[in-house]
Amino acid sequence: MTYCVGIRLNAGLVFLSDSRTNAGLDAISTFRKMMVYEKAGDRCMVLLSAGNLSISQCVREILQTEKIPNGDGEPITIWNAKSMFDATRVLGSAVRRVYETDGKALQNAGIDFNCSMIFGGQIGDEAMRLFLVYSAGNFIEATRETCFFQVGESKYGKPILDRVLTPDTPLDEAAKCALVSMDSTLKSNLSVGLPLDLLVYRAGDLKADRIVCIDDKNPYFKMIHDTWGQRLREVFEGIDDPAWNGAAAEFPLMQESERYESMRKITHPGERIV
Amino acid sequence: MTYCVGIRLNAGLVFLSDSRTNAGLDAISTFRKMMVYEKAGDRCMVLLSAGNLSISQCVREILQTEKIPNGDGEPITIWNAKSMFDATRVLGSAVRRVYETDGKALQNAGIDFNCSMIFGGQIGDEAMRLFLVYSAGNFIEATRETCFFQVGESKYGKPILDRVLTPDTPLDEAAKCALVSMDSTLKSNLSVGLPLDLLVYRAGDLKADRIVCIDDKNPYFKMIHDTWGQRLREVFEGIDDPAWNGAAAEFPLMQESERYESMRKITHPGERIV
Repeated sequence: MTYCVGIRLNAGLVFLSDSRTNAGLDAISTFRKMMVYEKAGDRCMVLLSAGNLSISQCVREILQTEKIPNGDGEPITIWNAKSMFDATRVLGSAVRRVYETDGKALQNAGIDFNCSMIFGGQIGDEAMRLFLVYSAGNFIEATRETCFFQVGESKYGKPILDRVLTPDTPLDEAAKCALVSMDSTLKSNLSVGLPLDLLVYRAGDLKADRIVCIDDKNPYFKMIHDTWGQRLREVFEGIDDPAWNGAAAEFPLMQESERYESMRKITHPGERIV
Repeated sequence: MTYCVGIRLNAGLVFLSDSRTNAGLDAISTFRKMMVYEKAGDRCMVLLSAGNLSISQCVREILQTEKIPNGDGEPITIWNAKSMFDATRVLGSAVRRVYETDGKALQNAGIDFNCSMIFGGQIGDEAMRLFLVYSAGNFIEATRETCFFQVGESKYGKPILDRVLTPDTPLDEAAKCALVSMDSTLKSNLSVGLPLDLLVYRAGDLKADRIVCIDDKNPYFKMIHDTWGQRLREVFEGIDDPAWNGAAAEFPLMQESERYESMRKITHPGERIV
């Protein structure tokens, strides 16, 4: 599988991806899932991809030359699009082109046309934008209320994002949050693996210079990995165990008087509780 | 959906279930998913169920009267089984009976025969045992190495279980861990909801007297909910943000010298990075 996360903040954008793919448990490989498209001073766009690797590689290849009609004007590409919305339409079109060529054959082989992508960045004077592109080439955009997207094995790492991220979160704090989210995912799911690609984009830069490939020797990620697990245990141990007889407890789990009342207990054959 | 977790420790068993079911987003209801089968002093068994509600309710109904052959002896039921293994075979048989009656019609309607259950407890002198029962009525048993099972929306709450639980974990600490795991799931997934059923079984008791139904007024769960989220944020804030220029940092994310080296950046149309 894969785990990728893209975050849109007031201060900028954060992108993080793992690099594991698997086609069955005995076919595990490393493929990097982040690609940066940049014309410094004009546009900077980042693509993260999840799903069937043959599809996402095809989409990336085609994206370079994909054009969509523009009335009587020059067709729109990712390199001349005047907005991230238009650039994302080009990406959607590339996804649909791969579907046209491969969809039927994949279906015949019983394989879903499965591909999801996070695409974000900034073009010219436009504000930064972040999109989630689906297998059908349609897409949604991140807003103030929903400021991050995940693709792939997203559930393990979602709670910390839900708890921490708001549009006002500083960039480096959001990068740290994404790395903690990734660490939880790595811990619980074998199909997500190192190295990671992390990119932090500052609003208005129109180029990316904070990109790093993180392997198991990266001092910062090692520190996150060691510290987070240990502190989590400390916090956990610092919370009181439940008190079953509530009389003496500050936060009783159950009052003595409640005992048995809420019980769904069948004590002889044929008894029914609805 | 649903989230249920069952844990087998040296000291006893812990069971926790939510109570939300949904058939589409506009058909959300409360159905409790824990059932206790107890003949005090002889046996105590707990069933948690996830999946299609019509299937799991049928299985629970049938389980009361289900029998499996026992050579020339009296057929085996959950009430006379001499081992948890045999009791779980009876449960598997009940699942298969529902499949026989409903499987075809569900298939015709395009609905998966989807049902998974956690079943554990203790019978007589036998050690406590914990099983995970699949839709096909087959099952696996928890071991020292894998001491918990989850069914339903399991991923959000798995990291904390992975980090904390071992067979030596005390019972109340495991109950706290299950509640933290549930809290993370509730926070991130709408299809899991209160009230919760929590049961803690002490090895050798052969009856269950620590059962509680936890709603949004429960002081202990409220404390867990408030404290965990807040402490998590404190721990998070206590970890250094990444330092992009490693020279001065104790745990550098990137050394200045590494900059650009690992970059996957396409800077003009047609450029390829493999």
